[in-house]
Amino acid sequence: MSLSILDLFEFLKIDTTSAKGKGEEGAKFLLDYMREKDINSELLKGKSKNPYVYGEINVGSKETLLIYNHYDVQPVEPLDKWNSDPFTPTEKEGKIFARGVADDKGTLMMRLQTIIELVKEKKLKINIKFIYEGEEEIGSPNIVDFLEKYKDTLKADYLLWEGSGKGSDGSPEIVLGVKGLLYVELRYRTTKDLHSMYAPIIENPVWKIIYFLRDLRSPNGKVNLEGFYSKVKRLSEEEIKYLKGNKSEMENALGQKIQSNFIEKLIEEPTCNIDGIQSGYTGEGSKTVIPSYVIVKIDFRLVPEQDPNEVLRSLEKKAEAEGIEVIPLGRVKPYRTSIESKIARELISSAKDVYGINPVVLPNSPGTGPMQSFASILGIRQIADGIGVDYAGSNIHSFNENIYKEDYFLASNWMKEFVAKLSVGIT
Amino acid sequence: MSLSILDLFEFLKIDTTSAKGKGEEGAKFLLDYMREKDINSELLKGKSKNPYVYGEINVGSKETLLIYNHYDVQPVEPLDKWNSDPFTPTEKEGKIFARGVADDKGTLMMRLQTIIELVKEKKLKINIKFIYEGEEEIGSPNIVDFLEKYKDTLKADYLLWEGSGKGSDGSPEIVLGVKGLLYVELRYRTTKDLHSMYAPIIENPVWKIIYFLRDLRSPNGKVNLEGFYSKVKRLSEEEIKYLKGNKSEMENALGQKIQSNFIEKLIEEPTCNIDGIQSGYTGEGSKTVIPSYVIVKIDFRLVPEQDPNEVLRSLEKKAEAEGIEVIPLGRVKPYRTSIESKIARELISSAKDVYGINPVVLPNSPGTGPMQSFASILGIRQIADGIGVDYAGSNIHSFNENIYKEDYFLASNWMKEFVAKLSVGIT
Repeated sequence: MSLSILDLFEFLKIDTTSAKGKGEEGAKFLLDYMREKDINSELLKGKSKNPYVYGEINVGSKETLLIYNHYDVQPVEPLDKWNSDPFTPTEKEGKIFARGVADDKGTLMMRLQTIIELVKEKKLKINIKFIYEGEEEIGSPNIVDFLEKYKDTLKADYLLWEGSGKGSDGSPEIVLGVKGLLYVELRYRTTKDLHSMYAPIIENPVWKIIYFLRDLRSPNGKVNLEGFYSKVKRLSEEEIKYLKGNKSEMENALGQKIQSNFIEKLIEEPTCNIDGIQSGYTGEGSKTVIPSYVIVKIDFRLVPEQDPNEVLRSLEKKAEAEGIEVIPLGRVKPYRTSIESKIARELISSAKDVYGINPVVLPNSPGTGPMQSFASILGIRQIADGIGVDYAGSNIHSFNENIYKEDYFLASNWMKEFVAKLSVGIT
Repeated sequence: MSLSILDLFEFLKIDTTSAKGKGEEGAKFLLDYMREKDINSELLKGKSKNPYVYGEINVGSKETLLIYNHYDVQPVEPLDKWNSDPFTPTEKEGKIFARGVADDKGTLMMRLQTIIELVKEKKLKINIKFIYEGEEEIGSPNIVDFLEKYKDTLKADYLLWEGSGKGSDGSPEIVLGVKGLLYVELRYRTTKDLHSMYAPIIENPVWKIIYFLRDLRSPNGKVNLEGFYSKVKRLSEEEIKYLKGNKSEMENALGQKIQSNFIEKLIEEPTCNIDGIQSGYTGEGSKTVIPSYVIVKIDFRLVPEQDPNEVLRSLEKKAEAEGIEVIPLGRVKPYRTSIESKIARELISSAKDVYGINPVVLPNSPGTGPMQSFASILGIRQIADGIGVDYAGSNIHSFNENIYKEDYFLASNWMKEFVAKLSVGIT
């Protein structure tokens, strides 16, 4: 094993906080690093400030594995809660502490170094393409433009996503998709604020919205929109078999009691959630007023094969009947790779071999992300996440972000096994 | 007729904006004015910055009429919308423009001068007490303390409230009571904000409040609290006879279409109104969050004989079952003088004589006020409002406040007739 922790440390020292406009230095580091190892690489500019870093290794195979990672990191605040400097990698009790070590630099370097080793050992039998983004932590705002622009360059048969390490019960975690999203703002307005003495004869927008929302979603979570559930793809028996999670770990993290079937619900259930609501007077004391304006922000999370555009149309129809305005703010389609697919099977099989236990396999994450854009724009049908260096206590997006040093090496083994199995049978 | 418009103008020139801490100069003007006319008068101090002004005329009658007015005025803003200086009384097209001319200085002076005339003509047959407040426009915060302290001084058989002139259809308007009020804040909170990907398994306070509010009040306005309607006193046939109002005038003022039975609903119907609601994220763009906190402000307007304390108890019981916190912010009991009472009958009769048409008689105003405190603390059972100088277009609380000059004299006639009729039959 000749993975270089020192090289990882050099990378970790570079502040690549995209929310603060940083990152270019990290892109340059990766470009130089890859070129030094004889990997064809270049910076691809799009509309983004931080360039995309592209690298490719062509071994003459018929198939190509595209590896996605991001080199930008979350802001470090609150700084006073860190036990060591976030940009000075620090080893302690078998762990490495640094901003980005778990998300996503540790996984990026582990995979890159592993592939480099395979090349050196002449064991690589599948073409590799690397694509590293510098804006993931700020929502990948330019990813769609970028994929459209470079779709020929990024053509591939398989896509390995940014990294998924150990789940809440310590098993390696594989994720085969993402939920979709429809984000809307609802607004209702009357002529002007009025004294609440007129309540018997004047419509109050808040009451109107309340009755609308009550109809929209029942107390048990059921969404009452035409056709909402008609295309929902239920999980197969095979998929349910691989769902695992630790209830008390999750309750600790969320600060609330949850039900036992929480994993199935998180994965399978489409939801309608209120992100915010505001109307009228909510300051100190009392003001007797019938407000003239109410605003609500709602997100629907969707599962395969729900379509955010169809959900939006149903919602608009229902709202229009009440004169309520609907403003769409975001639409993302759900995505799921089959557990029967080659990429899924080889990830599962290699995980079993390396870790000696069944991995957790989530048919989709409970959240959403641009995985679906890669599928639709690049035409890649086999996309999955796994082979990461993080674990449940990594404090991703928080202070004292860390990984276990040994997981860096274990995950590298997983990478090697996976790439080897993936290469089998390519003629 | 020797009412002095000039004296009124002198009073109007004094800035008595209580919200800006002004008023004492107005109190002093009234004290001097009354003493000059040989009315026993003094300043009564309470906890308020602006003193109460008290005056009395004892003619040896067995009965006493207490007259309430306020000498403070609303702030003038927005100043740029006035066509003349608010504190320089200006005559134009038969109207007098000045801040306070309609609310409440015009009525105050008209009544005071009329009584002074009756004394001069030796026609006053009932004792008179005047009580002038300087904090009405800021909600009479010290009135209860004041009434408790001076209840012996203010003892009386009848109370004429601050003034009610011509209603929306041009008829003189008499008001025999006020609605009650219960103002509350509802709060619900969970441990912390969470990412909305957890929506399938985590409770959202906004949904919880929505289901609670939907149960609390039906779309037709019905309030679903135990015992809410059990003590509601319906209007009598006599009371309904005197309800009049101009629908299109009201629609103009409110900026919305209203139903034909709007007067009955405004007077008779207890309501549950949402003054404000706030939770989560409502800024620019999207944030996917399950908020941890929601706050709602609600006012219930009550009619005789509903009790705000009983309504609060019902509400607390319902809310407690859901773990929702209820914080009471205000409680005012409703009040209504019977249309059969002497004060009501003589107000109606004198209005008919002077104006030649039936007055509008509202069994209670659609809003609330401290009338009930006068009833309960001073023990006065005959309280009514009328005999004011304002009309529907007076722009009370707004810019270009005004009255018709001739209404100053017409209302004085009404005052004379009323006082004369009230005095009949006192042995």
